[in-house]
Amino acid sequence: MNVAVIGLGLIGGSLLRALAAHGHRVTGYDADPHTRDAARALAEGAGLPRSADPRTRAVEVTGGWAVAESVPAAAAGADLVVLAVPLPAIPVVLAGLAGHPGLITDVTSVQGPVRELLRGRRFVGGHPMAGKESSGFLASDPSLFDGCAWVLCLEEETDLADWLALAGLCTALGARVVPVTAAEHDRTVAGISHVPHLLAAALSTVLAGNPLAGTLAAGSFRDGTRVAGTRPELIAAMCGGNAPAVREVLAGIRAELDAYAGDLAAEDPIALLTERLREPSDLRRAWPPGPGEPSGVPAERGELLRLGRAGGWVTAVRDGEVVAMRPGTDRNGS
Amino acid sequence: MNVAVIGLGLIGGSLLRALAAHGHRVTGYDADPHTRDAARALAEGAGLPRSADPRTRAVEVTGGWAVAESVPAAAAGADLVVLAVPLPAIPVVLAGLAGHPGLITDVTSVQGPVRELLRGRRFVGGHPMAGKESSGFLASDPSLFDGCAWVLCLEEETDLADWLALAGLCTALGARVVPVTAAEHDRTVAGISHVPHLLAAALSTVLAGNPLAGTLAAGSFRDGTRVAGTRPELIAAMCGGNAPAVREVLAGIRAELDAYAGDLAAEDPIALLTERLREPSDLRRAWPPGPGEPSGVPAERGELLRLGRAGGWVTAVRDGEVVAMRPGTDRNGS
Repeated sequence: MNVAVIGLGLIGGSLLRALAAHGHRVTGYDADPHTRDAARALAEGAGLPRSADPRTRAVEVTGGWAVAESVPAAAAGADLVVLAVPLPAIPVVLAGLAGHPGLITDVTSVQGPVRELLRGRRFVGGHPMAGKESSGFLASDPSLFDGCAWVLCLEEETDLADWLALAGLCTALGARVVPVTAAEHDRTVAGISHVPHLLAAALSTVLAGNPLAGTLAAGSFRDGTRVAGTRPELIAAMCGGNAPAVREVLAGIRAELDAYAGDLAAEDPIALLTERLREPSDLRRAWPPGPGEPSGVPAERGELLRLGRAGGWVTAVRDGEVVAMRPGTDRNGS
Repeated sequence: MNVAVIGLGLIGGSLLRALAAHGHRVTGYDADPHTRDAARALAEGAGLPRSADPRTRAVEVTGGWAVAESVPAAAAGADLVVLAVPLPAIPVVLAGLAGHPGLITDVTSVQGPVRELLRGRRFVGGHPMAGKESSGFLASDPSLFDGCAWVLCLEEETDLADWLALAGLCTALGARVVPVTAAEHDRTVAGISHVPHLLAAALSTVLAGNPLAGTLAAGSFRDGTRVAGTRPELIAAMCGGNAPAVREVLAGIRAELDAYAGDLAAEDPIALLTERLREPSDLRRAWPPGPGEPSGVPAERGELLRLGRAGGWVTAVRDGEVVAMRPGTDRNGS
């Protein structure tokens, strides 16, 4: 496939490298000339600069790619254009894609607003659930999508053949493709990705003005706050772009915390709290679910959406046949 | 030193093994006969059962220990008795230590109530900030305390010579000994340990009734909820034993979350939220602080407590001389 990747940060850079390693013809573009230089240097075998992630440097470059000097130049002749830029930059990139006939997808963490921006275009919304604290092309990793859940939105207006083609591409990179609507995606990621960043930020404030806290803090604090070190602009953009859903989840979390506080004010806090914590503890210990049995799924919108809602995912698309997995009852890896 | 360790769970078991490896004469006791058998079998070189943590089995047994059949038998002749049992079990163990002349310490995550229980005894309250999700003797690890912060409480009634002797023992195991009062400890651990468990539990509830959430959840959810899988009884015991401090921190977290929700309801949520998240992000990225320069500290209660409040710790006690570190301005490891 002939693919253009617009935006070469962590996700776009990783995708550029992963697609090239899988034999696709890939052209990248980034608005930052230093990023374009780094992407070009790596393609030419010069390797990443010394400051790059050591794990990344260990990865062999198995394919090359081109780097263009503009969005239209990158997209020329592409069957697929991937918008790997932050939400606010999408309109600018779209202006450079006026009249482009190929399929467009994105990797944005909020799908509703992207769907609105792309109305009338040949578009399938996408969001790979992959990331790490580090960002930028130097942190890119061609194996980033191996095993990751990759949402591909399936709306009334989505062309099923386009969806299946994209699902085939993503599963070939090792991703588990999850068919959902943009609305279902946005509601769910508010809980499992956006609000976790806000909880991590709130928890980090216990360090303020208390050096003793910084010295005593250990594993539970480290893990509970890990993503608080993400750039404030990124957290604000993903939460702000999904504000209604994030506020709803925050209200639920607050109600839960209020219930804990209420138990702690009662006469026998330990017994009450033990009972209340049983469900969250069971939920967490059963996560992540292991895969169940593979099975075929009809290549129909309704069937695919049912699969996604049940926690299932597509593992391969071969000659229009969809191979799927549903979550098992056993915990993954236990 | 002749040491008795009462309670051979994760912390007690690890301590038994660490002390033995450092050449102390150690005797352990646990109320559970299966745990006593396991501790005895390991001491005899039979190794842990096959279900043990693989990392634990890799550790060489460098010293032996004895396992007694009762608290008084374990404590007979001990210079130091370590209470490594949950808070509710401490009174029962103390009944078995009636008339015991040696120093007593503990490893409890709430220090105020333990201080009350031990009034009138020769006691120094302690809390190593070490742990992992797994529990029990089979998860024990003699290197668990290497580099960990270990609170040793310094109260008006604490004998300074006892405190220094215990600090010397703990620093020899590789721990960073932090001198604080029980009240300071309890306020601080509410923020960096107890409330993180409650936030993890609250966040886990987003999985309830939504299999799609379980499939899409990735790194930020995994880390933000890791400790939610801890046994509800343990979380409830530590939060319930420290209820006033935990409620105060919860109120602060709730105010923070309400502020985020307010920003998200405003006209320009991204700009507001970016500004608000700057401080928590900076706090988290500056953590953990790197060690500054080592320096001597007078072996006096006031000086030692000042060190602890400033985020410093004791690294060694030699012939009554205290060697200390204060946190540096650079981040540890950056």
